[in-house]
Amino acid sequence: MEKKGAIGQSETRWDAISKVKGTAMFTADFPVQNMLHGKIVRSTIAHGRVLEFDISEAEKMPGVVKILLPEDMPQNQFATAGHPYNMIPEKRDVADRLILTRDVRVYGEEIAAVVAKTELQAVQAAEKIKVTYEEYPVYLSPKESMAEGAMRIHKERDNVIANTKVGFGDVEEELAKADYVLKEHFSTGVQQHVHMENQVAIAYQSEDQRWTCISSTQIPHICRRIIGEAMGMPWSQFRVKKPFIGGGFGNKQDVTIEPLAVAMTMACGGRPVQLAITREESLAFTRTRHAIDYDVQIGVNKDGHITAIDFDVYSNQGGYASHGHSIGGKGGTFIHALYKSDALRYAAKTVYTNIATAGAMRGYGIPQVMYALESIIDDAAEKIGMDPIEFRMMNAQPDNFKNTISKIKQKNFLIEECLKKGREAFEWDRKLKDSLNYKSGSKRRGVGVGSFSYGSGTYPFGLEVSGARLILIQDGRFKLMLGATEIGQGADTAFSQMAAEILGVPTNHVIRDFMTDTDVDPFDTGAYASRQSYITGFAVREAAEEMKQKIVERASDIYDVRPEYLDIVDSQIIYAYDGEVVTSLADLALASFYDMQHGQSIVAESAVNIHHNAYASGCTFAEVEVDVETGKVDLLSVMNVHDSGKIINPKLAGGQVEGGMAMGIAYGLSEGLRYNEKGKPLNNNLLDYKIPTTMDLPELDFEFVEEMDPLAPFGNKALGENPMNSPAQAIRNAVKNATNVAINDIPLSTQRVFEHMKENNVITVKNQADAK
Amino acid sequence: MEKKGAIGQSETRWDAISKVKGTAMFTADFPVQNMLHGKIVRSTIAHGRVLEFDISEAEKMPGVVKILLPEDMPQNQFATAGHPYNMIPEKRDVADRLILTRDVRVYGEEIAAVVAKTELQAVQAAEKIKVTYEEYPVYLSPKESMAEGAMRIHKERDNVIANTKVGFGDVEEELAKADYVLKEHFSTGVQQHVHMENQVAIAYQSEDQRWTCISSTQIPHICRRIIGEAMGMPWSQFRVKKPFIGGGFGNKQDVTIEPLAVAMTMACGGRPVQLAITREESLAFTRTRHAIDYDVQIGVNKDGHITAIDFDVYSNQGGYASHGHSIGGKGGTFIHALYKSDALRYAAKTVYTNIATAGAMRGYGIPQVMYALESIIDDAAEKIGMDPIEFRMMNAQPDNFKNTISKIKQKNFLIEECLKKGREAFEWDRKLKDSLNYKSGSKRRGVGVGSFSYGSGTYPFGLEVSGARLILIQDGRFKLMLGATEIGQGADTAFSQMAAEILGVPTNHVIRDFMTDTDVDPFDTGAYASRQSYITGFAVREAAEEMKQKIVERASDIYDVRPEYLDIVDSQIIYAYDGEVVTSLADLALASFYDMQHGQSIVAESAVNIHHNAYASGCTFAEVEVDVETGKVDLLSVMNVHDSGKIINPKLAGGQVEGGMAMGIAYGLSEGLRYNEKGKPLNNNLLDYKIPTTMDLPELDFEFVEEMDPLAPFGNKALGENPMNSPAQAIRNAVKNATNVAINDIPLSTQRVFEHMKENNVITVKNQADAK
Repeated sequence: MEKKGAIGQSETRWDAISKVKGTAMFTADFPVQNMLHGKIVRSTIAHGRVLEFDISEAEKMPGVVKILLPEDMPQNQFATAGHPYNMIPEKRDVADRLILTRDVRVYGEEIAAVVAKTELQAVQAAEKIKVTYEEYPVYLSPKESMAEGAMRIHKERDNVIANTKVGFGDVEEELAKADYVLKEHFSTGVQQHVHMENQVAIAYQSEDQRWTCISSTQIPHICRRIIGEAMGMPWSQFRVKKPFIGGGFGNKQDVTIEPLAVAMTMACGGRPVQLAITREESLAFTRTRHAIDYDVQIGVNKDGHITAIDFDVYSNQGGYASHGHSIGGKGGTFIHALYKSDALRYAAKTVYTNIATAGAMRGYGIPQVMYALESIIDDAAEKIGMDPIEFRMMNAQPDNFKNTISKIKQKNFLIEECLKKGREAFEWDRKLKDSLNYKSGSKRRGVGVGSFSYGSGTYPFGLEVSGARLILIQDGRFKLMLGATEIGQGADTAFSQMAAEILGVPTNHVIRDFMTDTDVDPFDTGAYASRQSYITGFAVREAAEEMKQKIVERASDIYDVRPEYLDIVDSQIIYAYDGEVVTSLADLALASFYDMQHGQSIVAESAVNIHHNAYASGCTFAEVEVDVETGKVDLLSVMNVHDSGKIINPKLAGGQVEGGMAMGIAYGLSEGLRYNEKGKPLNNNLLDYKIPTTMDLPELDFEFVEEMDPLAPFGNKALGENPMNSPAQAIRNAVKNATNVAINDIPLSTQRVFEHMKENNVITVKNQADAK
Repeated sequence: MEKKGAIGQSETRWDAISKVKGTAMFTADFPVQNMLHGKIVRSTIAHGRVLEFDISEAEKMPGVVKILLPEDMPQNQFATAGHPYNMIPEKRDVADRLILTRDVRVYGEEIAAVVAKTELQAVQAAEKIKVTYEEYPVYLSPKESMAEGAMRIHKERDNVIANTKVGFGDVEEELAKADYVLKEHFSTGVQQHVHMENQVAIAYQSEDQRWTCISSTQIPHICRRIIGEAMGMPWSQFRVKKPFIGGGFGNKQDVTIEPLAVAMTMACGGRPVQLAITREESLAFTRTRHAIDYDVQIGVNKDGHITAIDFDVYSNQGGYASHGHSIGGKGGTFIHALYKSDALRYAAKTVYTNIATAGAMRGYGIPQVMYALESIIDDAAEKIGMDPIEFRMMNAQPDNFKNTISKIKQKNFLIEECLKKGREAFEWDRKLKDSLNYKSGSKRRGVGVGSFSYGSGTYPFGLEVSGARLILIQDGRFKLMLGATEIGQGADTAFSQMAAEILGVPTNHVIRDFMTDTDVDPFDTGAYASRQSYITGFAVREAAEEMKQKIVERASDIYDVRPEYLDIVDSQIIYAYDGEVVTSLADLALASFYDMQHGQSIVAESAVNIHHNAYASGCTFAEVEVDVETGKVDLLSVMNVHDSGKIINPKLAGGQVEGGMAMGIAYGLSEGLRYNEKGKPLNNNLLDYKIPTTMDLPELDFEFVEEMDPLAPFGNKALGENPMNSPAQAIRNAVKNATNVAINDIPLSTQRVFEHMKENNVITVKNQADAK
C-alpha cells in the first residue's frame, strides 16, 4: 500500500459546492427572528466637533426603534486593530476610539446611529437627524498635521503617534564612502480592500443573557475581546461567530462595526439588530492601505556593492491609530531581509491626519516599502550600468542569513532562485531585447522586475499562538476545529489536507465547519499576516500527531501489537513494516467508542506558541507598453515567482497568487482613493474607484520555487499576502525601462504618466493657444 | 476566605430568563431560509399491507414539492431505541423499522409522506392520497399475539421478541416452605409522556454537503448514528443539533422522525424541511409506556421472612421492538435490589402486538414492576398482620448489599431511612389512626405506602461513557461543553455547579450552551436512565480537576510557587495554607493567553467509561379518600422520600420530584391510552387523555435522605425518573386500606374503582329494573 499524501494535492475546496450553489451562509444570510436594522449617522465634515443633534424629526419617522447618540454609549476608549492583547501596556494598540463620538476626525465619522424596523426606515430616519458642527482645519497629509501650530487631532496625544527607528551601522559614514549616492522621494496612494462582502454584523442577546455577534470578521477571538473592551464588560459575556465571509484583505482585521452592533441590541432589549454598511461606506469609512511617503538614499559602489540604505518614512494614518505604528515600523526588517548593506537606517513616523483611517491591508506596509526600495534599487543598478537582476542577485541575502533586526534565521531564503527561475520562465532576456524595437514613437515597451521579502506571521513582534482540536468520529473520519479563520482564501481546505496528511486519510475525511465560534473553537488570533498556514499549521500538525498516536495506541491495545509497529495509511491501520492491514480505521473507531470495557471517544487538542518565523520572498516580472502620448500603461505580460516553501494546495495557491497579482497591479497602475481639500472622499463608489476586471488584466503567470522549509509545519511559508508585494515596483521599473522616465509616485495612472512624459519632454504638448 | 461550594445550592437555572422571556430557541423556532414542510401519511388500519397508493390527486395539490412512498426510501432496517451501539450483534436493539413501509403493524403506521411549501399544503395533499389495504387480524394484547395460530407481525421473527430470565435459588422449593403463598395478577395501563413540545425536526444539507438535523431529541449523538444506519451512509455525514427542548420523558430517546426528515431534504435537493408532528400524532403514534401483565407469587412466613418472589411478566410491545427487551428484562434486578428473599425468579416475555409501539418512559419499566411488587408486598404484610412499613424495613436490602443479579454493590442504599423519615414526616401513624374514623359510609379514608429502587445509568447492562470539555476564557470564566443533554430537567445548571465546585468560581462563571451539537460536543449518549448527573458528573469532575490542575500549574510557573501550595477559591488563586491571595483568576487567565513567551490557551477535556452504578431508592406515602359510591379517588396528601445521595441543586431537584410525583399519581389514578377492537386509538388528544393540572393534585410533599454516596462524582445518585416509581402503588395500597378492596389493575380510574366496589359488595347497585 503506497502512501499518497494529501499535502501538495490540488484538492477542491470543501466549500466550493455550497458557494457555487448559493447555499453557503454569509452573515447577511442569517435569518434571525424579529430582526431590527441599524444605520450609522456619519459626519459631513472631516474635522471638528458636533455641537448639537436635533433628532426631533427623526424620532417621528416610521419604524424608528432607537436613536443613539454618543452620550448613550459606554465611554471606554478602545483600539480597533486586530492584534492579540499585549501584556505590556506601552506595546498595546492605541486606544483612541469611542463607539460614537462628537469629536469628528474624519469625514464620515460615526457620530450617531438609528435602529429601525427595516433598513430603509433606518436610512430615512438617519437622514432626518440635523447636526450642528464646529469646524476645525483639515489636514490631509502628515506634512500638514506635523506643521508648526497644527492642532492636535486627538487632544490626548501628538499628531505623530509613533516614531519607529531600526537599523545598524553608520549610515552617514557608509553613504559617504559610496561611489554613488542616489536620493529619491517616493509616494504611494490610498488603496482600498474592496472585499466582495461589505462589513456586516448581527448582534443579539443569547439564551444565557450574554451577547452574540455574528460578524464578517477575520479575527473572531480578537473581535470578542475588543467588543468587551469597548463595552467595559468581561469578555466572556460576548460570543462572536463568523460564518462564510466574502473576503477581508485586512479590512476585517479591524473591529469597526461590531461594538456598535452590540450596543444597538443592548439598547433594544436584546432584540437582534443587523448592522450592514454599504459599499460607499466600506470604501471610504472603514480602513485603507496607508499612503506613505519615503525619502530614500542608497549608497552603491561601481562594483555593485551597497554601502548604505536610508529610509525616512511618513505614514499617513488618517483619523485613528488602528494598525498604524506596526505598519509604519515593519519596513526596516524586510529591507534588511532582502538585501545586504553595510548600514541601514529606517525611521518611520506614523501621523494622524483627517483622511480615512488606514489599517491593515494585504502586505501590511510591505507593498509600499518594497515599492520604494525596489525602485531605487533598480535606479542604482542602472546608475552603475548593471543588469537589474544581476544587481539584485548579487546583493540578495543568502540562504540561512540571520536577520539582524528581527533575529530570525532566514532558512531556505530563496530570492536568488526566484529571480533566476523568473528570468527564464518570463523570457526576460528575449523581451528586453524585443523592447529595443519600441523605444521611439508613441507606443514604447520595456520590462521591469521587482522583489520583496515577507514573514509568515508576526513573530518576534507579535504573539503567535494557535490551537486545533480533532475529534474521531465513529466511522473513522474526523472533525477538525480551529479558531483560525477561512475568509475565502481556502485555509480550511489546506488545514484539512494537513491533518489528512498526518492521519493517513483522504482530505474530505477531515471535516471543517463553516462557522468559527469563539465559545467553542480553539483560541487562535485569526486570519492576517499570512500566518495561518504557518502558525495554525503547527497546531494542526500537533493535534493530528496526538490523534494518530492515540489511535495507534488504541489499536495496539485491541490488536495486541506494539504501537511503533503500526501506521495509518489510506484509512487502514497497517503493520508499518510490511503494509499488511490490521483493521480499518472505521472499525477501530467503532470499537473505540463502543467497547464496553474500554470504550471512549478519542479527541486530540493542541495549543501552540510559535517562536519562529519563516521568511518568504518573491518577485514580479512585468512587460509594459506605454502610450506616451496619452499616458496609458498597458501591461503586456506579467509573472510572479514565489519562494513560499512547500505549496500545500497548488490550485488554491494559484488562486491566491492571481488575486494578489491583480491587486498589486491595480495598486501600481490605477487604484487610489481621492479627497477634496475638505477631506471629503471623491470616489468612494465602484464607478469612480475602479478595480480591475479580468478584461483589464493580462494572463497572470506565476511560478513557485518550491522547497521544503525545514522549520515549517509542512515545509510551507507565507503566501497569502505575498503576491501583492512586488507587481507595483516591477511595473514602475518597466515603465522606466520603456520610457526612460522614473516615476516615483503610484498609482501610475494615465494622467500621472502623461504629466511625467510631458515634464520629461518625452512628448511635447502644445497648448491650445500654440495650436492656433 | 471561606470556601463556599456551588454544590447543594439552589442556583437559579441559567436558562430561566430566556424561557420566561420567550426568547429561548426551540427546534420549531429555528428560522431557516426557504423551508419546506413535511407531513406523514399514516395508515388507517392497525395490521395489514398497503396494496396500492393513488397519489394522482395529491400530486396536483398546490404547493406540493414531493410525495414519498416506501419505495423511494433507503431500505435499511434499523432500530429506533436510543441506546449506545453494541459491538455484540445479538445484544443490539432489534432492527425492525423502515423509514416508510407498506407493512402496517400499528394504526397510524408511517406509510408515505408529503413535502410541500407550507404545512397546511402538506396536510391537504396528504389527505388526498388514497390507500388500498389488505387487512390482517389485529392483536391488542400479548395473549392474542402469542395465541396458537396468530400470524407473525414481523415475518422475520416470532411475536415473542425477547425472553428474559433472571433470578437465583429454587423458587418452587422456597414457595413450598413458606407459611403463606400469595398469588396475584397485576396489570398496568398505557401511559403517554405528553412532553410539552411535540416531536419536531428540521433537516437540510449543510455547507459541506453533509446533512444537518436540528431536532428535539434527548440523544443527539445516538440520533446521528441511527440516521446514518437508516440512510446506510457513514455516520459522519450527519450532524444533529439539539436546541432547547420541551421535555422528553423517554419519548425522545427514540429516533422516530429524524430519518424521515433527512430523507425528505435529500429528496428535495437539500432544501430545509421541517417535520413537526401534532399532539394527536405524538400521543398515539410515537412511543408509550409498556402495558405489562404480571403473574406474581410471594412466599412469606409468619415472622415476616420472604422465602421467594416469582414474577411472570408479559410486556405489550406494540408494533415495533424499540426499547422492548431491555425494559422487559429490567425488573428482576430492582426487585432484588429492594428486598431480601431466599429465591427469586423473574421471567419476562416482550411481545409484539398491534397497539402503539412502547418505548422508553420515565422509570423504564420500573413503575410497572414496582407497582406489582409493592402491591403484593403490602398484601403479604396484611396477610401476616404486620405493619406494612415494618414489613418493608425488615425485608429491605441492607446498606452495602451486593446485588446478585447486577453484581452492583448497593453503597449507601437507604430505603430503610426513607421509610423511617417518611413515616414521621408524613405523620403516617396519625393519618392511619384518623382513617379509622372513615371506614364506613360513602367516603372512606386510608393510607398506603410504596417503595422502589432504581439505578443511576445502565451499567452493567449498557455502555456508560461521557465526556466534558472546559475552556478557560480570558476573563477567568469558563465554557463547559458536554454531549449530555439539557431537556428541561435543569441538567446544565447542575453541571455548571459541579464544575464551579471544583474550580472555585460562582456557578454562573461556568457557561453552558443551549445547543448540543454532535459535531463539536464531547461524546455522550444523552439524557435517559437518570444517568447524566451521575455518569456525566464524573466527566465534568475529571475535566474540572484537570482544568484546575493546569491553572494551578500555570500560576505556579508565573508566581514561582509549588503547585501543591495553591488553590482556587472565589475566583482567586490563593495560598492553600493561609488563604492569602496570589492573584485573581482573571489576571492569571489573561497572562495565560497573552504572555509572549509561554502564552497558551488552557483547555481540559475528559472522556470517561464508568463501570459502576449507584442504586437509589425511595418511597411514596399516600392518604386517600375513596367515594365508594362513585369510585372517585381523592388524594388527600402525598409525600415522596428519596435516597438520591447528595442533592446538587435542591430547587431543581424539587422540581423533578414534583413533576415525577404528578406523573406517577396520574399513572396510578387516571392516565391510559385506549384502543378500539381494531386497534384505533380512542383518546389521543388532551381532551380525552387527561393529564393532571395543579387543580387535580394535592400539595406534593417530599423529603430527601441526603447522604453523600462515596462512589458517586459528587455524592449524588439518580433522581430524574425516581419520583415516578412509587406513587401508583402507594395509592393502590391506600385505596385498599380505605376500602378493604385490593385493586390490581391501574389506572384506578373512577369507573374501575366503582366496578371493584360493586364486585366486592362494598356498595350495592340496583339496576334500573330493580329500582322500579
